[in-house]
Amino acid sequence: MLNERMVGLGSSRSVIRELFEYGKKRAAIVGAENVFDFSIGNPSVPAPASVNETVMRLIREEDSVLLHGYTSAQGDAAVRDTLAGSINRRFGTDFTGDNLYCTMGAAAALCCCLNAMCCPGDEIVVIAPFFPEYKVFIEGAGGKMALVPADIDTFQINFEALAKTINAHTKGIIVNSPNNPCGVVYSEETVKKLSQLLEAKSAEYGHPIYLISDEPYREIVYDGVEVPYLTKYYKNTLVCYSYSKSLSIPGERIGYVVVPSAMDDWQRVYAAVAGAGRSLGYVNASSLFQRVVAACAEDTADLAVYAKNRRILLDGLRAMGFTCVEPGGTFYLFPRSLEPDAVAFSERAKAHDLLLVPGDGFGCPGHVRISYCVPTERIKRALPVFEKLAKEYK
Amino acid sequence: MLNERMVGLGSSRSVIRELFEYGKKRAAIVGAENVFDFSIGNPSVPAPASVNETVMRLIREEDSVLLHGYTSAQGDAAVRDTLAGSINRRFGTDFTGDNLYCTMGAAAALCCCLNAMCCPGDEIVVIAPFFPEYKVFIEGAGGKMALVPADIDTFQINFEALAKTINAHTKGIIVNSPNNPCGVVYSEETVKKLSQLLEAKSAEYGHPIYLISDEPYREIVYDGVEVPYLTKYYKNTLVCYSYSKSLSIPGERIGYVVVPSAMDDWQRVYAAVAGAGRSLGYVNASSLFQRVVAACAEDTADLAVYAKNRRILLDGLRAMGFTCVEPGGTFYLFPRSLEPDAVAFSERAKAHDLLLVPGDGFGCPGHVRISYCVPTERIKRALPVFEKLAKEYK
Repeated sequence: MLNERMVGLGSSRSVIRELFEYGKKRAAIVGAENVFDFSIGNPSVPAPASVNETVMRLIREEDSVLLHGYTSAQGDAAVRDTLAGSINRRFGTDFTGDNLYCTMGAAAALCCCLNAMCCPGDEIVVIAPFFPEYKVFIEGAGGKMALVPADIDTFQINFEALAKTINAHTKGIIVNSPNNPCGVVYSEETVKKLSQLLEAKSAEYGHPIYLISDEPYREIVYDGVEVPYLTKYYKNTLVCYSYSKSLSIPGERIGYVVVPSAMDDWQRVYAAVAGAGRSLGYVNASSLFQRVVAACAEDTADLAVYAKNRRILLDGLRAMGFTCVEPGGTFYLFPRSLEPDAVAFSERAKAHDLLLVPGDGFGCPGHVRISYCVPTERIKRALPVFEKLAKEYK
Repeated sequence: MLNERMVGLGSSRSVIRELFEYGKKRAAIVGAENVFDFSIGNPSVPAPASVNETVMRLIREEDSVLLHGYTSAQGDAAVRDTLAGSINRRFGTDFTGDNLYCTMGAAAALCCCLNAMCCPGDEIVVIAPFFPEYKVFIEGAGGKMALVPADIDTFQINFEALAKTINAHTKGIIVNSPNNPCGVVYSEETVKKLSQLLEAKSAEYGHPIYLISDEPYREIVYDGVEVPYLTKYYKNTLVCYSYSKSLSIPGERIGYVVVPSAMDDWQRVYAAVAGAGRSLGYVNASSLFQRVVAACAEDTADLAVYAKNRRILLDGLRAMGFTCVEPGGTFYLFPRSLEPDAVAFSERAKAHDLLLVPGDGFGCPGHVRISYCVPTERIKRALPVFEKLAKEYK
């Protein structure tokens, strides 16, 4: 008599969570230092000092009733103006606070966008490899996920497959660059081709196909890689942002949706996003953390450790014969597994207490995800273990 | 091509919000001191000092990665244990942390419960007068709201009407005591009769009818009124709680759902609530504020001003001839309007810059809601204005 979809979602642990729990059990047996858990994508560096300093300052200086009180459903007007200004300065856009809708993180932002646009029968396109919760959010909004297989040589977009996947029922497409799980950043060439395809398909089917850009990793990039700002290439783009990764505050759930004025019918789209937030029970994003991110919008946690880990691990694995597409950002590597069955490979790694997530759940078999948001010394100690594993395949 | 329900929800301002905006406009013309805005139910007292002290302490003492990091989806285990212990001490229950699911306030809690239980065709019963967003949340979960008219003499439950409203499609019923908008607390007699009726109807239809108790005002009661803890009367009760009102932190969005072990199939119900949270994009409730409410679970803001306001306003209005059922709690009065059409009455009040919300939106015409969470001096200055209005009807 319950909603069985919800029972299922609440009962099934994700593969990632299973591995993580297994790692905790093994740590109790063999010692935490002997378990190499690369399963979970939790930021491992503290928030920048400015976050906690801002919390303290706001509490000292602001009136409690205002500071902890309801804000407008779309977020405090001054906060939205500040965030829009910061985006404009950094990415050459021209948003105002009216284009922003504050949310409780990127998951909430995605749910608001998906619920705003999905009507019965609608399809949302997702490109492998993809964050598995997209399917949950799309189905929660009453849509159907349509999966485009990965281009495993580059992890850019397989445009031939994408063109075939889009049809009259396609309402939107979610992209995630820098990408979880593969770390790859879409090149400007990819973005331009994507925009052209979406424009042509929108014209062909007589309705906009919305591009939903999920970009919590925008600030976590290496070697000067640029992440194109998608609203500048395709007008019907909704940006979903979260401060979880850039400010290392994933538990505080704070982010936003950008609904550009250049979008078709933008005010109706904005209303639909706000209406979805209302229907899903969001009321408003945390009033304290709205103010915090406005004050810290251009700060980031110290990402140097990720850069260091990435270099050591990528060079190390390649030297052992692993094939891994160059990841421009995030804190994930996504090498090919050393046998075609990534689940079997992950099991063999587990025998060495090396916890890697098979790519199957990300829609990309034959690969494993390695979350390197861990202390560097763990990376260094893990290399000989990877080596042992690799030798088994020689 | 958008979801028109969401466009509608995001475009239409509530009557309350319209009045509030009107009040701000009038204040700019006639001066803030001459507008008597009783429209909005925002706590007007600061959070207890312990809230801000706890925030500061946590930031000083705790590791940033843990403090601002993801918690389990259901909330931090230690937090849930602490909250369960506090509920048990105060209300004589026997919950553990496993019975609690932390949410972003009561709205999120309601949405999780409704999405957990609603299947296509299901009805959720609501008793007038009711908080208008219930309809939004029920329809968002795919259910249909079935409204039981108010018993306007007592604002307890019209059981005859309730019995007729429940049918084979009834999945649950939402109650809200202390009640927004009327302030009334259900007596133990009402709770017992309700429990008996729900048990009989559950047996008749061969499935549990869930009682959803929305109780953000539990701590805001006067004259020693007791608020029965519903899980002790009816096993299939889900409690939705928020700290918005008791701790005056409505903008921070923090609360919980209680799923008692005594409930039929409780672990499946718990899983469904958690699954709904996942499907709606909630991830976890604010990690910082989970810790804050655990530390402040038995504190409240200084509610003395509400008690004072209530007394002055209730006595004053009754002396002018207003009929008002004794409100045991909240910060609302819900007197009868002085003409049958509450909208017309509210318009006449508006001519005096007295902003009262017509009861129609709460499913209870012929009444107006007065939110007395305002400075006491505003209440005192408003009395002569109410007097003038009342004289027009003599």
